[in-house]
Amino acid sequence: MIPVPGLPEVRAGDRLADLVAACAPLEDGDVVVVTQKVVSKAEGRLVDCPAGDEDARRALVDSESVRVLRRSPGRATIVETRHGFVCAAAGIDFSNVPDGKAALLPLDPDRSARRIRDGLLARTGRRVAVIVSDTFGRPWRRGLTDVAIGCAGIGAVLDLRGTVDGYGRTLRVTEVAVADELAGAAELVMGKAAGVAVAIVRGVDRSWLRESSVRAELVRSPQDDLFR
Amino acid sequence: MIPVPGLPEVRAGDRLADLVAACAPLEDGDVVVVTQKVVSKAEGRLVDCPAGDEDARRALVDSESVRVLRRSPGRATIVETRHGFVCAAAGIDFSNVPDGKAALLPLDPDRSARRIRDGLLARTGRRVAVIVSDTFGRPWRRGLTDVAIGCAGIGAVLDLRGTVDGYGRTLRVTEVAVADELAGAAELVMGKAAGVAVAIVRGVDRSWLRESSVRAELVRSPQDDLFR
Repeated sequence: MIPVPGLPEVRAGDRLADLVAACAPLEDGDVVVVTQKVVSKAEGRLVDCPAGDEDARRALVDSESVRVLRRSPGRATIVETRHGFVCAAAGIDFSNVPDGKAALLPLDPDRSARRIRDGLLARTGRRVAVIVSDTFGRPWRRGLTDVAIGCAGIGAVLDLRGTVDGYGRTLRVTEVAVADELAGAAELVMGKAAGVAVAIVRGVDRSWLRESSVRAELVRSPQDDLFR
Repeated sequence: MIPVPGLPEVRAGDRLADLVAACAPLEDGDVVVVTQKVVSKAEGRLVDCPAGDEDARRALVDSESVRVLRRSPGRATIVETRHGFVCAAAGIDFSNVPDGKAALLPLDPDRSARRIRDGLLARTGRRVAVIVSDTFGRPWRRGLTDVAIGCAGIGAVLDLRGTVDGYGRTLRVTEVAVADELAGAAELVMGKAAGVAVAIVRGVDRSWLRESSVRAELVRSPQDDLFR
């Protein structure tokens, strides 16, 4: 786990791959985790939202949602986004953005990850994987964890069904959300307050490196979901 | 992230701290992540459950649950355990255990973690933290991740409320579930099939090392939960 400090303030239109390449010492097989906020900034997803204007915030959340799962006064509004993510406030970020602004999620975080991955290859010649991460809450457990909202070049879910346990029996259900675990692990070396937006995970199993997407592998379909 | 192979087959009554100390090169400040299964085995939490007997499995799940959240044919039964965990099948494990057996969760995984931590200190002189991890699913996202079900010597949740973001504003809500992120990160180097049950996370921020418990910090109370 290698934190990558030194990323400059990101502005709309910046080529994030160039900025990351300039400060990250990459090796083939690295997984580069980039937080959603800098991706949103680079992609021009900062919008106006007057500080403290709860009505404006609510309208913004509604505009980014396809469904509201829970809304109660003084509590987070839990919605389903167009991507299929279930999260608070449609993943809109009101901190670590300039005053009066809010950061919307990237329109297609898997595409964002592919673009950064391709840009890093073009710029550095290194074949790396990229995960775009964001900080989500979850029911039943307190605290937030970072999860993957987009990925490129690494499997989002590792399917161990059919492999054999330590007693020689076939595992029935073991699909490991490695992209989420990698995003969470990266968070540990980035730190919310420190403002490090990029981390490298080096040494992951090469068999995990393949084409994939969060949307296809990690987003649970509503019909397959016991809690929607 | 350091996987610790070489743990012998664990039996009821084994002192897990002694077994871990014998194969883990510990340093002060390490976080030792131990999977629930070996803790359950050491604590004699293996019970009989005839292979393939769905009625016996169901009775076992019910006996370990205080509430059923979702039960549907052919799908996982989602329950609340006595500890307050919401998970499939009350966290009972039917794989990586001997035929005809099932592994129940430890009665008090925070106490399990404290006991291992204290044992490691007594045996090695190293002041380490311990996390007992287990593999849980979650709604809305596919795949499983490892989370903390018990901890000792490390904060389960890092409270960043009151710290300042990159724009000098106070963060409103940022409680990071570091124990869960550490458990997930450890899973990445253990691997389900490989059967490595212990990993060391070295180099965590020393400020995270304090008395804590999963039960007090990570379990969301039902009244504070929008999805129960």
